Amino acid sequence: MEELVPPIPVSSEATITLTTDFGLDDAYVAAMKGVILEINPGATIVDISHSIEPQSIRQGAFVFSTAYAYFPQDTVHLIVVDPGVGSQRRAIIIETDNAIFVAPDNGVLSYVVQAYTGKRSFRATLTKLPPELQAFEITNPKYWRHPVSSTFHGRDIFAPVAAHISLGTPLNELGQAITSVSVFPLPQPQTDATGNLIGHILHIDHFGNLITDVTSQDLPPGEYSIQVAGHQIGSLSHSYEQSQGLLALIGSSGRLEIALKGGNAARLLGSKLGDKLRITRRRTGRNRG
Amino acid sequence: MEELVPPIPVSSEATITLTTDFGLDDAYVAAMKGVILEINPGATIVDISHSIEPQSIRQGAFVFSTAYAYFPQDTVHLIVVDPGVGSQRRAIIIETDNAIFVAPDNGVLSYVVQAYTGKRSFRATLTKLPPELQAFEITNPKYWRHPVSSTFHGRDIFAPVAAHISLGTPLNELGQAITSVSVFPLPQPQTDATGNLIGHILHIDHFGNLITDVTSQDLPPGEYSIQVAGHQIGSLSHSYEQSQGLLALIGSSGRLEIALKGGNAARLLGSKLGDKLRITRRRTGRNRG
Amino acid sequence: MEELVPPIPVSSEATITLTTDFGLDDAYVAAMKGVILEINPGATIVDISHSIEPQSIRQGAFVFSTAYAYFPQDTVHLIVVDPGVGSQRRAIIIETDNAIFVAPDNGVLSYVVQAYTGKRSFRATLTKLPPELQAFEITNPKYWRHPVSSTFHGRDIFAPVAAHISLGTPLNELGQAITSVSVFPLPQPQTDATGNLIGHILHIDHFGNLITDVTSQDLPPGEYSIQVAGHQIGSLSHSYEQSQGLLALIGSSGRLEIALKGGNAARLLGSKLGDKLRITRRRTGRNRG
Repeated sequence: MEELVPPIPVSSEATITLTTDFGLDDAYVAAMKGVILEINPGATIVDISHSIEPQSIRQGAFVFSTAYAYFPQDTVHLIVVDPGVGSQRRAIIIETDNAIFVAPDNGVLSYVVQAYTGKRSFRATLTKLPPELQAFEITNPKYWRHPVSSTFHGRDIFAPVAAHISLGTPLNELGQAITSVSVFPLPQPQTDATGNLIGHILHIDHFGNLITDVTSQDLPPGEYSIQVAGHQIGSLSHSYEQSQGLLALIGSSGRLEIALKGGNAARLLGSKLGDKLRITRRRTGRNRG
Repeated sequence: MEELVPPIPVSSEATITLTTDFGLDDAYVAAMKGVILEINPGATIVDISHSIEPQSIRQGAFVFSTAYAYFPQDTVHLIVVDPGVGSQRRAIIIETDNAIFVAPDNGVLSYVVQAYTGKRSFRATLTKLPPELQAFEITNPKYWRHPVSSTFHGRDIFAPVAAHISLGTPLNELGQAITSVSVFPLPQPQTDATGNLIGHILHIDHFGNLITDVTSQDLPPGEYSIQVAGHQIGSLSHSYEQSQGLLALIGSSGRLEIALKGGNAARLLGSKLGDKLRITRRRTGRNRG
Repeated sequence: MEELVPPIPVSSEATITLTTDFGLDDAYVAAMKGVILEINPGATIVDISHSIEPQSIRQGAFVFSTAYAYFPQDTVHLIVVDPGVGSQRRAIIIETDNAIFVAPDNGVLSYVVQAYTGKRSFRATLTKLPPELQAFEITNPKYWRHPVSSTFHGRDIFAPVAAHISLGTPLNELGQAITSVSVFPLPQPQTDATGNLIGHILHIDHFGNLITDVTSQDLPPGEYSIQVAGHQIGSLSHSYEQSQGLLALIGSSGRLEIALKGGNAARLLGSKLGDKLRITRRRTGRNRG
């Protein structure tokens, strides 16, 4: 059979992204890049982030979710936040219309799965994939680096598998088709007794901006005021420049974001992940008087 | 008309550099790279620095100024230190004989303009460009990513414009010619009442070396002694190895630099940006006795 | 003679790695990349680490040693940890069957030399190379960037030399053959009076894992218990997942490593480089009762 399929090329210009909790001080990320380039010298490798807090699957999932959609068609995304390395947790591949994702099966692809299912609260930890997503468990050691270290599957399993995918190796060569993958329930705002939306801080970025679990879809057209850490923000701004002091706006990833003009909102407010904020829909001026 | 010009290629090996204040923990830089590679998969993207202090146009301008001259002919340099994102500040392109610069019009290209005008003190914030520099305001939304986020022009305007430039899109397709751009007065040494040169610390590097606004052009051939933070340095050294303890030399960017052999001068001296140092021209040995 | 050899190409897809103590905040690394790309626009440049502690030759040597073996055949590795820049220390090239190394001759290639000699304790600082290693002192200024800064050979000598090597320039064009290079004695475990192995902490990684100078070769098959910072670890684990709390295993670089499941071992133990640990071979269960 194999003689009939076209041969896999030895180099291809595909883009491969890397997201890990390895940091950049050690040479772990570099070892993965070396392994990739040995298999596909033509690969363009792009770092998404290597500053995920060690073993924080949720932060890795979120940071990755803010970038993958901007990459070219058929990009291979490799995410290695893998506290279970060396255990029985599965290693998986998910294929969508636009991209291919390679990661441990620990929920780090939850936002990707949500983008296709539309669901934020998954019924079970193991969720059935919609038909437009193909998934595979990585099981074929032919495409791994040997000997496989029990502490560094990023280098010995994930990197070579991603490189082989970038060359066009059929996914069903790399492992067996599966129909369910692990996810975690994604943070989402609640509605309180008086009808206000209660959101949560999901991420604090480099500028100290507070990114929340409230999306533009959660906010029907209207005027809103926001209470956060004892401060009141009277309305949504259009840009960082528009207001003075503390402000709220829909940020570049489509989420409600609290910022401090020319400063660091997280430092001013002493914010931490999970902190709540209340969004109140205001009566509009037209309704008054 | 358009049918007569050669078509823009779909991939080109051009180099694009990135300088931002985004840090590397979030995925903001990666999103820009994804956008660039989608437009020009052949681009070689090089990070200059993403550690510019948030919204510090002056630091961004300086750090960028120490690297751009070493890149290949026709490199596209993208600088996004942009506190005014979403406001009415212009987005611009400057073209020189060697390179093309894409940035907000907020002074972050002041050192580039100085390199062509020779001026350190500009008469006005808005300075007329010399004829050898072509400049354009970025106004043609055809080359942007849509919808344009009001908080992330780096991803939605600057990155796609830089990528299209790297493909050879004519600059006058991207916007309208302009003849003046914003600059800030560059730091420069003063001469005090007794004829000594008073310089300033412009940058403290990773090694704790103090880079000053005194250039080799400010120091005619001769012998100098330097006073800084209560310490006296008797002469200029040729290399870090040549002297013991605190030393002064002309560093790799052509500027007077204070260093501590095998140590961190900034930590020893408790230095901060803007601190002064005094340079005294010494009578040479030949004049004595 | 030169007319008879095939011409050097003007672009080649070779991989060049960079290891420095420059950090990523300044533009020093970027300047080196610009110089490389100007000479070889087709080079793929990979960062190994730029977080080597300033002027720490030993840390640079170690971190580099954990990554270089994973890169493609004929990769050019450039290591610039160079406290002696501008002094009389030599700049060298070492060629092996697999790769080419460019660095100051200060011991930063000690692990590379060891991999070929098998020796950990070198008789002299200057060690004779085995015949399978070719080495050259970089002496031909034709391949350098001019003027050469006395404080930044990384940009003006090492980067252009590495780029020319990646194009295929013969090494004997770049300098003169040498037969000895500088090395430092590599850390290695000792045996104490009671026959136990005394190892040392060689590196603390991003996760707080303690990497030691005890290699898998130092541990013949058997059962071991480990004493470190007043804690007792009863046996070697296979993976981070297998045990609870503090654990010991052979890590991904073939070295004995102390880790804390889901935590930071270095922080728990207050560890620092050079700290000792004792490895005791246990009587196996079969010998008991």
